[in-house]
Amino acid sequence: MISVEEAQQRIAAAFKPIDTETIDLGHLAGRVLAEDVPAHSDQPPFPISAMDGYAVRLADGDAPRTVIGSAPAGHPFKGKLEAGQAVRIFTGGVIPDGADAIVIQEEVDVDGGNLHFNASALHPDYIRAAGLDFKTGDVLAPRGKRLTARDCALLAAGDIVRAKVRRRPRVAIASIGDELSRPGEPRRPGGISASSGYGLSALITTWGGAPCDFGVLPDTAQEIATVADADAEIVVTLGGVSVGDHDLVQKSLGTRDFELDFWKVAMRPGKPLIFGRLGTTPLLGMPGNPVSTLVCAILFLRPAIDALLGAESSGCSLPQRFKCGCRTMTARLKRGLPANDSRQTYLRARLSQIDGETWVDAFDVQDSSMLSILAQADSLIVRHPNALAAEAGDRTEVIPLDGY
Amino acid sequence: MISVEEAQQRIAAAFKPIDTETIDLGHLAGRVLAEDVPAHSDQPPFPISAMDGYAVRLADGDAPRTVIGSAPAGHPFKGKLEAGQAVRIFTGGVIPDGADAIVIQEEVDVDGGNLHFNASALHPDYIRAAGLDFKTGDVLAPRGKRLTARDCALLAAGDIVRAKVRRRPRVAIASIGDELSRPGEPRRPGGISASSGYGLSALITTWGGAPCDFGVLPDTAQEIATVADADAEIVVTLGGVSVGDHDLVQKSLGTRDFELDFWKVAMRPGKPLIFGRLGTTPLLGMPGNPVSTLVCAILFLRPAIDALLGAESSGCSLPQRFKCGCRTMTARLKRGLPANDSRQTYLRARLSQIDGETWVDAFDVQDSSMLSILAQADSLIVRHPNALAAEAGDRTEVIPLDGY
Repeated sequence: MISVEEAQQRIAAAFKPIDTETIDLGHLAGRVLAEDVPAHSDQPPFPISAMDGYAVRLADGDAPRTVIGSAPAGHPFKGKLEAGQAVRIFTGGVIPDGADAIVIQEEVDVDGGNLHFNASALHPDYIRAAGLDFKTGDVLAPRGKRLTARDCALLAAGDIVRAKVRRRPRVAIASIGDELSRPGEPRRPGGISASSGYGLSALITTWGGAPCDFGVLPDTAQEIATVADADAEIVVTLGGVSVGDHDLVQKSLGTRDFELDFWKVAMRPGKPLIFGRLGTTPLLGMPGNPVSTLVCAILFLRPAIDALLGAESSGCSLPQRFKCGCRTMTARLKRGLPANDSRQTYLRARLSQIDGETWVDAFDVQDSSMLSILAQADSLIVRHPNALAAEAGDRTEVIPLDGY
Repeated sequence: MISVEEAQQRIAAAFKPIDTETIDLGHLAGRVLAEDVPAHSDQPPFPISAMDGYAVRLADGDAPRTVIGSAPAGHPFKGKLEAGQAVRIFTGGVIPDGADAIVIQEEVDVDGGNLHFNASALHPDYIRAAGLDFKTGDVLAPRGKRLTARDCALLAAGDIVRAKVRRRPRVAIASIGDELSRPGEPRRPGGISASSGYGLSALITTWGGAPCDFGVLPDTAQEIATVADADAEIVVTLGGVSVGDHDLVQKSLGTRDFELDFWKVAMRPGKPLIFGRLGTTPLLGMPGNPVSTLVCAILFLRPAIDALLGAESSGCSLPQRFKCGCRTMTARLKRGLPANDSRQTYLRARLSQIDGETWVDAFDVQDSSMLSILAQADSLIVRHPNALAAEAGDRTEVIPLDGY
C-alpha cells in the first residue's frame, strides 16, 4: 500500500494540460485560462472625475470661477480650461485639458455663472489618472487562473471579448456491479440503485470537467472491458476494485492493455483504489461505496482534472493550504478522537464557529456506506497515519466540503 | 439614508418563492427544492454484508462451518442457513436467512469445504441492517435546500428520479450610461467598456438565477424607461442612480409607474442604491461602479434571489453566520484600521491562515473603481457604522468572496 501523498503525486504526474478552445466573455466564468490575458486598453482610458462637482485649476486657489461648460460621463468638454475657469463635471467625466483638481458640488456656492469655495475644497485626489486601474498590456488574469465573476468584469473593462481556455476534460464514469440498476428502474433481487455516479457527475461539472455517463455495467469481464472504448481524458470506474472473488476490474482490463500504476492506498475509506493506464487513457478505479467515491474524488480526481486544465489553484481563496489541489484548513476538535492506525482516515464532521474560532465535531457513526451522514456533513477531519489520540480543543486538519 | 440591515429586510420582504418545475436527477445539483423529498425505498433494502467473508450463525460459536453457497452483491443466496452452515458473501451481498454474523475472509482457514476460525472472529456488526442509512418515507432533503452533489447521490440511492424545484428567477440587467459601449465595440469619445454587468451576470448564474442582458442604455429618460418592459422577476439597473444632473433612473421610471421604496443606504461603496417596484416587478438600482455593483449584489441581490428560490440557506456550510443570506466569518486584523464614519464600509482584503487562525489584511488602495484590486481580493472586511479604530490582532467581521 502506498500513502495518500504518493498516490496524489503519481496521479498528478500522469496528466498534462489538454487542448484549448476560444470562448466568449459571457461564458468564461469558471473556465481556466490557457494563456495570459493582457488588457487591450488603459483603465480609465483618460483621467476622469471620481465625484460630481467642478473641474478647476489648483493654481487659481480660492478665486471665484466661471463655469464655461460641462463634462458628463461620455461627453468630454472640448475646450481647455484657462485661469479662473471651471467645467461642471460628473463621476466618470473626462478631466478637461488644463484642469488638475475637483471641487465637489456640496462645497460650492453657485452665484449666477460663478463658483465660490474655499481653497481647502480643492481635491487633486478626486481625479483618477489614466491607467490607474490597469494599463494596456498589463496581464489582467494569468494563464492557469480559474476565472471568477470578478475576473470577467475585469476582462470586460480591459476590452477583452474572448479568451483561450482549456477544453473541459471528458471524464467517463462507469458504475460496475450486478446489484446496480438506475434509480426508478425495476430492481433485481438483492439489487440497489446506483448512486455514487450521480454525485460524482455533479462534482466533475463543478470542477470544470465534462462527465460522460458510461452506464451501469454488470460484473463480467467482457462488459467491464468496454470502458476501454470510452472517448475521454480519464476513465473512472466505481466498484469492482476490492479483494473479493467478484472484483473484476483489473482482471477484465488486462485484455485491453491495462497497465497498472498502483493498487491500494493506505487510507480509510477508499483503500482499494486503482490507478493505471488503458492504452493512453488514465484510469482511476474507485471503490463504489458512496463515501469512498466522494473522498477519492476530492483527493485524486479533482487534482487530475486540475492538471488537465492546467489550473494553478483550486479557484478557492479561503484560508487553506493546497495539497495537490485539495484545500484544507485547521479547526479545533469539539470532542477527542482515539489514536489512528496506519491508514490516513477521513471522518465525516460538522464545523461551527464560536467566538471567532473554528471548531469541528466528527459524527458518531462513520459507516462509509451512509450517504445520509455524508449529505449532512460539511467537512472531513483528516487523521494522519498513526496519529496519537487527540483531546477536545486540539487543532486538527479539516477538508471543508463546501461546494461538494 | 437607511441602514444596510433595514435595506436588506425591506428587499427580502418584497419577494416570495416563484413557481416550480420538475427536473431530472442528473440536473438537480445546485437547484433549490420546492418540496420535501422522501425516500422511495429503504437503504439498504435488506441486511447486507459490509465485508468480504462468510455469513454464519452466532449460535454455532467456533464450530467448523460447511460452505453451502455464495451471496455476491446482486445475487442473493436462496436457501436458509442451518446449524453449522456458512455462505460465502461479498460486500453488498444480502445476508442469507438464518445468518446473523460475518467472519471476514482474512480470519478464516479453509479446509476443503469447511471453515475454521475463532469465536472472536464473529462480527454481527459487519451486517448493515435494512434501512440503516434511511427508510422509505424518510425526508432525504427538505424543501428549501440547495442540492449538493452529495444530495444528488443520496436521492439516487433513495430511488428518486426527478424532483420539484424552483424555476431559475430571471434577472434583467440594464447598464446605463452614455459613456458605455460593449467590450470590443468602437468606443465613443470619453467612453469606456461596460464591465459590471458581465461580472454580475456570472454571479447571478452561480446563485441559481437566469441573467437576461437588457443591454447598454444611453442616459435618456425614454431609453431608460424601456427596462419596464423586461420580462423578469427582478430588474437590476447599473449606473444612473447618483446625485448628479445626469442620474436619471428615478426620473425616467416615473413615467412607468415606478414606486420608490427607498433610495440611499448608509454604506460605502454603494450608497446611492435604489429599491422600488416597476408595476409588479421589483427594481434594484445599483451604482455602476464595479466594486459597488459587486458589494450591492452580495448584500442585496443574492438575498433577493434566495427569497425567489425559497432557499433556506446560502448553500454554503463553512463557518459563518447568515445575515439575510450573506455569509460572514471572523478573522484577525494583520494591521490596524482607522475609526469609521457613519456609513457601513466594505474594504477589499486578503485572508491568510497562520497557526490555525485566520487573519485578514485590507488593501492600501480602496478606490471603488478599481477592478484589478477587486479581482485580487478574496474577502471584504465589514466596518460597522462609527466603529472605533481597530488595532492589529483585533477580530473583525469578514465576507469571504470565495465563489464570487
